Amino acid sequence: MSDAAPATGAATATATSAVEPFDTVDLIRVKRSGGALSTAQIGWLIDAYTRGYVADEQMSALAMAIFLNGMERREIRDLTLAMVASGETMSFEGLGKTTVDKHSTGGVGDKITLPLAPLVASFGVAVPQLSGRGLGHTGGTLDKLESIAGWEADIPVDRMRGILRDVGAVVCAAGSGLAPADGKLYALRDITGTVECIPLIASSIMSKKIAEGTAALVLDVKFGSGAFIQDRAQSKLLAQTMVDLGRDAGLSMAALLTDMNVPLGLTIGNALEVRESLEVLQGGGPADVRELTLALAREMLALAGQPDADVAAALDDGRAYATWRRMVTAQSGDPDAPLPVARETHVVTAESSGYVVRQDALPFGIGAWRLGAGRARKQDAVVASAGIELHAKPGDRVTAGQPLFTLHADDAARFARALESVEGAWSIGSEAPTPTPIVVERIS
Amino acid sequence: MSDAAPATGAATATATSAVEPFDTVDLIRVKRSGGALSTAQIGWLIDAYTRGYVADEQMSALAMAIFLNGMERREIRDLTLAMVASGETMSFEGLGKTTVDKHSTGGVGDKITLPLAPLVASFGVAVPQLSGRGLGHTGGTLDKLESIAGWEADIPVDRMRGILRDVGAVVCAAGSGLAPADGKLYALRDITGTVECIPLIASSIMSKKIAEGTAALVLDVKFGSGAFIQDRAQSKLLAQTMVDLGRDAGLSMAALLTDMNVPLGLTIGNALEVRESLEVLQGGGPADVRELTLALAREMLALAGQPDADVAAALDDGRAYATWRRMVTAQSGDPDAPLPVARETHVVTAESSGYVVRQDALPFGIGAWRLGAGRARKQDAVVASAGIELHAKPGDRVTAGQPLFTLHADDAARFARALESVEGAWSIGSEAPTPTPIVVERIS
Repeated sequence: MSDAAPATGAATATATSAVEPFDTVDLIRVKRSGGALSTAQIGWLIDAYTRGYVADEQMSALAMAIFLNGMERREIRDLTLAMVASGETMSFEGLGKTTVDKHSTGGVGDKITLPLAPLVASFGVAVPQLSGRGLGHTGGTLDKLESIAGWEADIPVDRMRGILRDVGAVVCAAGSGLAPADGKLYALRDITGTVECIPLIASSIMSKKIAEGTAALVLDVKFGSGAFIQDRAQSKLLAQTMVDLGRDAGLSMAALLTDMNVPLGLTIGNALEVRESLEVLQGGGPADVRELTLALAREMLALAGQPDADVAAALDDGRAYATWRRMVTAQSGDPDAPLPVARETHVVTAESSGYVVRQDALPFGIGAWRLGAGRARKQDAVVASAGIELHAKPGDRVTAGQPLFTLHADDAARFARALESVEGAWSIGSEAPTPTPIVVERIS
Repeated sequence: MSDAAPATGAATATATSAVEPFDTVDLIRVKRSGGALSTAQIGWLIDAYTRGYVADEQMSALAMAIFLNGMERREIRDLTLAMVASGETMSFEGLGKTTVDKHSTGGVGDKITLPLAPLVASFGVAVPQLSGRGLGHTGGTLDKLESIAGWEADIPVDRMRGILRDVGAVVCAAGSGLAPADGKLYALRDITGTVECIPLIASSIMSKKIAEGTAALVLDVKFGSGAFIQDRAQSKLLAQTMVDLGRDAGLSMAALLTDMNVPLGLTIGNALEVRESLEVLQGGGPADVRELTLALAREMLALAGQPDADVAAALDDGRAYATWRRMVTAQSGDPDAPLPVARETHVVTAESSGYVVRQDALPFGIGAWRLGAGRARKQDAVVASAGIELHAKPGDRVTAGQPLFTLHADDAARFARALESVEGAWSIGSEAPTPTPIVVERIS
């Protein structure tokens, strides 16, 4: 026929080569019709995709079919392990310490890794924190730490092991050798509208963590407007899926389901968040940041065999801060260097008196991103000093004319679009809102 | 966040450029969630895809979302017209003749264009038959005609108009300038498992036919094992969708729904089908090929204002054959040249006596393709003489040991795989099967 492509039988016969055991179009058709791929099929698919035999166009169509038709639990595990097998794996055996990592699904103002890693390390546990950079409205841990003069994100494995042994905590860029199939697929999902999909998110996150070789992992799975999954039940499903995947692969696992409807803490933006993290590391800081840091630290230390560790004391007595300073120094950063400060600020004041009853995470995240805190494309640089500083949070009492938040940017021309983003993102009412807990559920 | 891409708001803000009115990922999300794209969105999408701004990966994901979530009637029309607008359009006004084209959705042994075009042209109607090459198990009209020594498929527009004026029928390759967006999308669908989808099939076929500029079009929409849509109800829906699309664009339209469970005629393969077409053009040939040729000719001539034309007479008295000879000659072919004959043949005989009760089109199509009649990849050449010749059809009485069909190939090594394809594809029973009509329904 001339205007339509071949039907099933012929296409199969056409495309299967002598050396490849499966035909890509056949596999796409299985997911298209809601079927399940076998372990062998998934293993081949990811290997062939890594080799370039399966084309990006084919993987895009398959990702959409998975998005719309889902995957069985067994398929998700097979996909995760196939992505682990697509590259190198690391091992932290022989360090003489147990290793515990933390992963957050990301949110607005989420700087928790900064106080958390040195806090946990101060208890003699190794925290290998392989992190990424931000894209879109949520910041990246590496971007935040790069606000510190001299700090380096790219640490070779040998040096990483040395820092883990000597200091206990290292936060660095994941090498491209870990789960390279995930790297390819992740980039594709970003441009093809196939991001918000539990099987693909869970396998993406867990393949990197399994390849990294940590013995234990605590997940901070967020829901709400500033999270990439808004729905609490869906986030819980994601958390459970990842916990199961990790446990199947031999990791000790726990997860906290946390609220991301409101920005975390009082700062959004790289240097601003480092400043706030330093407050927490010195026993101060906003209550929600301290609370979540402590909750995650308790989970991590429990997995490392120290369920009764007094983590609050380590923040209050300077142990965590001392470890922070050694951690920054070990990665060539100067812990005493002043943080970058924005050239321009713009203050938004309360239009009436009352209680802050709403402060929506997503628009504040987009606002900070438009000020320069985030990047539009991978190759863009972030502006370290840019972001938003909140002066009041939901539940706080304000009077008309009092500063509500301050925009920080290097170029005043950025204020207009940022203000557009946050327009209507907060409200002031006459009654104090019911306080909402930050950690809503523990999944194990 | 480091392991998941940005959520909706940010992605939108990220990717929309100053000059592009829409964001590709937003549009993918609309179809992903089962919504409808606006006329402006579809127009932009196809234009941006033709320009290369929308990437193949993105179009693949979108095609799968369309495959699984469908399109409204209005969206299909917008898609069709956007593909027409992506390239040149032709016009046959000023020929002094009305133009009628035919399109078949393709099947096994479907050589109908060969007798049909000259038959209709012999009534003074212009038949501009822009055709394609075969891919997979169904043959292409151009491949068949290229069995004729000297015959040329690539005819410039001026020469095409001259042949239409002087001879009345021309069968040639569609230039890549017509609906180029369809050309790109079609190639993509073939490798991404998104072929068998009514909105995409209908818009693909009709965009080319509308761009071609024919005044009227008759569709031969097939269902059954050898068709690319097996289900009769789905094929009918496709037929109605295309009839509506054509009529909306100002074409006179009709469609026949025809049975493709059994190969059409007694030959499958390029030169073999030309030989059979010559029999039909001289008043003979298999009953089903003659019947379908006459039915389609009546529809075409009715749309051209000759509802009472005696088409059977034109086959029987040599008028259609005379036009065939002039048509072949006008495209540099030699109508008297002997057709290529295969070097090797292999005869399969009846295993028992009785009636042929089943003869499954798809496996015979794949068998002919494996003998060399079709191509696995676009760039492959076909073997003109290769194919399958049937000696009996369902309803025919056979005796044990009598030849059932003959395989034709240039290399005897090809017989084994072809025999594998047709294994179990026919059966012989003691009772004659109920005859099934070839044209089952007329759609207008």
